[in-house]
Amino acid sequence: MNTPIYLTGTGQTRFAEHWDMSIKDLMEESIDSAIESAECTALDIDMVVVANMLGEVASDQAHLGAMAASLLPHHPPALRAEAACASGAVALHTACALLESGKAQTVLVVGVEKMTDIAPGKIAAGLMGAADAQKDAPSGLTFPGIFGLIAARYMHEYSLSRDRLNHVSARHHKNAVSNPFAQFCKEIPAESISASAKVADPLCMLDCSPISDGAASVILSTKFESPIRIAASQLATDTLSIADRPTITSFAATKDAMRAALEEAEIDRTDIGHIELHDCFSIAALISLEDMGFANPGEGIALYEKENKMTINQSGGLKACGHPVAATGIKQVIDVSKQLKESKSRHGLAHNFGGAAATCGIHILSHA
Amino acid sequence: MNTPIYLTGTGQTRFAEHWDMSIKDLMEESIDSAIESAECTALDIDMVVVANMLGEVASDQAHLGAMAASLLPHHPPALRAEAACASGAVALHTACALLESGKAQTVLVVGVEKMTDIAPGKIAAGLMGAADAQKDAPSGLTFPGIFGLIAARYMHEYSLSRDRLNHVSARHHKNAVSNPFAQFCKEIPAESISASAKVADPLCMLDCSPISDGAASVILSTKFESPIRIAASQLATDTLSIADRPTITSFAATKDAMRAALEEAEIDRTDIGHIELHDCFSIAALISLEDMGFANPGEGIALYEKENKMTINQSGGLKACGHPVAATGIKQVIDVSKQLKESKSRHGLAHNFGGAAATCGIHILSHA
Repeated sequence: MNTPIYLTGTGQTRFAEHWDMSIKDLMEESIDSAIESAECTALDIDMVVVANMLGEVASDQAHLGAMAASLLPHHPPALRAEAACASGAVALHTACALLESGKAQTVLVVGVEKMTDIAPGKIAAGLMGAADAQKDAPSGLTFPGIFGLIAARYMHEYSLSRDRLNHVSARHHKNAVSNPFAQFCKEIPAESISASAKVADPLCMLDCSPISDGAASVILSTKFESPIRIAASQLATDTLSIADRPTITSFAATKDAMRAALEEAEIDRTDIGHIELHDCFSIAALISLEDMGFANPGEGIALYEKENKMTINQSGGLKACGHPVAATGIKQVIDVSKQLKESKSRHGLAHNFGGAAATCGIHILSHA
Repeated sequence: MNTPIYLTGTGQTRFAEHWDMSIKDLMEESIDSAIESAECTALDIDMVVVANMLGEVASDQAHLGAMAASLLPHHPPALRAEAACASGAVALHTACALLESGKAQTVLVVGVEKMTDIAPGKIAAGLMGAADAQKDAPSGLTFPGIFGLIAARYMHEYSLSRDRLNHVSARHHKNAVSNPFAQFCKEIPAESISASAKVADPLCMLDCSPISDGAASVILSTKFESPIRIAASQLATDTLSIADRPTITSFAATKDAMRAALEEAEIDRTDIGHIELHDCFSIAALISLEDMGFANPGEGIALYEKENKMTINQSGGLKACGHPVAATGIKQVIDVSKQLKESKSRHGLAHNFGGAAATCGIHILSHA
């Protein structure tokens, strides 16, 4: 970072099935709460970046930048950023660029998704827009299908048993028990994971993050200081289709973004005390931990079979918190900042990807 | 601009009904052509920003940043920016921020829209996502309807006759005759405009920009110099719904963006030799010229009834070139740069808005 960027305000709705709230209502609740918590007032916000993937599909609503800006008394310049489930991370990256360029001093970043207003089949089709519609979709693949293939290949390559994989979702559910914003604040025993309905062999329902409504907002500023700052903001891209890759049990974009983020923050991975990672499916958590270098290939599961110095998805992750697609990347940053404030660790990391990690965004947060 | 930003490469497809091309094909043709024209190679591109509005609605395709990046050998980090019909402008603004922040030295900006693959009714509904889906859509309003209301009010306030309004589209069609990338390279007599089918009283079919497929790409760089640079990049936002505004015959976002752009470029509006403006509907051209200060309120039509020192939509504008939504803002910049290269004027301006100018982006280009 050329310029210190502070996280001055944070706010989120509960991630849940919000039948009585529109996409605008969700944004409004999280924006109000972020402004409430910030050192600045609404009028200090000089740009707005909205992260959203499914507005057109699920709410007939594009142009969410202007909609979010309309919720502020002075409707500052605004835009929407999208990269499927990594929309939150690319919006944060855009906000950092706006701040570092001097185009803005205080930027509101709102991640929002309203997913429950349309039928599950339509949402699954909309989510498939994160893959290559010409190359991947015609086969009938869905995202659970893609990650089912990835899980099957991973379990074959590394002889991971179905029973051991259960520990990922079980741990995330256990972590969520004390998170009032989580969709499922409920412990689930490991053996129940693989006993749940099969979705895409070998993945079961409880390996998959749910369909959720929710919004999360942060206010980033170069002007208003706060105890937590953004130490690194990095994006990386891989081929859109998994069919074009040499392997499906490792994601190059995560590796690239991680290398660049550690370099930007000038820290080592062992300096990281808290991580929120993108467990859209249980298998993704293991691959991501390995790609970030926290475990050797095939050994990520060991991090779920013991306690570690570094907390992993202490919030409950996508599995238990819910995964309102574009809100997730923003909510991860909020959770990492909370964790840092309550601990002695100096650094935390948010890992957010889109599609089968065709886009990966990594943000490192540090005590200022 | 903190740093000089050069327009080193430009390329576009023809705007047309491309029944044989997908959204990926359109992007690829314009990207290849931009790289071909640039001082740099594909491998020098270190970030990609894609402007797109209707990918999810018309092509079941989100995540277009990664798709565009996949078309380059090294798939650099990428994201998609959206603000309805101003998507091109917000993508350019994002690219400028990435360059000025130092996050990138060379950015590819691709605007793309594939509109003809779905039924006109579905496209009209998708475009209505540029307005407020809760506040504006339930009445049955479409965008021709919104601009019909605006035209009716404008004609009432300023006693503009239907015959005089005809000159806007007629001039744009005349200008397009020599533009090989225009969808309609055809002169249309003024009297034919109001003789065409009524769409939303008082607007007729030939007052409206068409449904189009197309892509336009530019390569912006702080590293590779070129004869043309971006002298200003400004965005402004108004209320999303026209129902929340004190007037509908003037757009505050255009006024705000123009004031800021002239200040950033450190020029006067009389220094501008060429302008490409957002004539989604004929009436929008008049209002925009007035809001930018080139005519007094109600007198914009005079600029279409004589020849001016400043060229207006010499390309043919949205009416005659076609309006593949998010490609328009990029194509305008390409046209202004061509016009500058062929003239003695030092400055040109691209004016691009989304919805009923809920978002407005203005870019000023200058000889380097």
